[in-house]
Amino acid sequence: MEKRTRVILALDVTSSEEAMRVVGAAADYIDAVKTNWPLTLAAGPEIITQLSKVKPVVCDMKIADIPSINRLIVEQAMARGASAVICHGFPGEDSVKACVEASKGSVYVVTEMSHPGGKQFTAPIADRLAEIARVAGARGIVAPATRPERIAALRAIIGDLEVISPGVGAQGGKASDALRAGADYVIVGRTIYQANDPREAARQVAEEARTVE
Amino acid sequence: MEKRTRVILALDVTSSEEAMRVVGAAADYIDAVKTNWPLTLAAGPEIITQLSKVKPVVCDMKIADIPSINRLIVEQAMARGASAVICHGFPGEDSVKACVEASKGSVYVVTEMSHPGGKQFTAPIADRLAEIARVAGARGIVAPATRPERIAALRAIIGDLEVISPGVGAQGGKASDALRAGADYVIVGRTIYQANDPREAARQVAEEARTVE
Repeated sequence: MEKRTRVILALDVTSSEEAMRVVGAAADYIDAVKTNWPLTLAAGPEIITQLSKVKPVVCDMKIADIPSINRLIVEQAMARGASAVICHGFPGEDSVKACVEASKGSVYVVTEMSHPGGKQFTAPIADRLAEIARVAGARGIVAPATRPERIAALRAIIGDLEVISPGVGAQGGKASDALRAGADYVIVGRTIYQANDPREAARQVAEEARTVE
Repeated sequence: MEKRTRVILALDVTSSEEAMRVVGAAADYIDAVKTNWPLTLAAGPEIITQLSKVKPVVCDMKIADIPSINRLIVEQAMARGASAVICHGFPGEDSVKACVEASKGSVYVVTEMSHPGGKQFTAPIADRLAEIARVAGARGIVAPATRPERIAALRAIIGDLEVISPGVGAQGGKASDALRAGADYVIVGRTIYQANDPREAARQVAEEARTVE
């Protein structure tokens, strides 16, 4: 059993070749990869299957539909090889529950988002969204590394659910700060996939993560 | 120039063959088709291109990410042949603006959703979401046919933007009620694609729609 690095690689790229190149280079220093819709649309859903042969795949689909459609989206993602999905809590508890059921509990719920618009409607209800994640039986929540104090506050609501935390590196968050505040995994994108040496960049993040605990 | 029927066919199916069969049968009585993520994941993004050769395609992606990712999603959808996309307003005005820019104004913003969970967080801010659609320069909004009184209220906020309205048929909404309340198009799914004769089912909806105005 390999040692956990607590690093998830965000593949915010739009070509299959680029995605496979970066994950191949960084593989020794990451626990999972996170894919998004742009990559899926550009490379086709087969990319989920391809990546899943190298590392567990978290499909960051920001799922936000009615329960019956949410269920179908998650079923399709799991059938393609996803290990987990990311959904929004905003469409309500029934929509989250549909994702939980279809993923057999392997869903992370977005609580806060780090962009300016996230302050308008999402941030004010973040605590309630975290509570929904807990009640619905989700695997965890998504909370921004740029606000470690919020990670700590949300951690208090969700108990032993997982926290995965984007915004590390180019967006200003520090991996060790997020982990110290209670995150289980940090999600790192540009710092790794835009590096001249993605393997070395991933190694450095993993090394920083190791300094915590 | 064909006469508008004011009917959009919701292709909530998960196979390419089924999608093409239904749209082929109903083509004379619909103005556009609406695709969703389950179909895209099952059939691959090529289905958007295939369908666009028969009718304009509205990609109901319920886009709800940060601006930079929203932009990439919309660019990919348009590159595949989409005529319009559907995004959420709750991630904030900047996220909606990114969709507007990337689609050259061809985006519809979700205001209210018709499932029970939609009452928790979305319905209470529906008026503000409609206002964001107007200010951001969207093409229109999505508002439920099951609540014609809400269509009328939202219409008052958005002025001459378009209203497209799901929930007609199996979900309980009536096409003529929604159009009379101010919808420009009704979105019809199961009533057409689950019918023994999808062409006849589409004809009946279009005929009902013609009774309004």
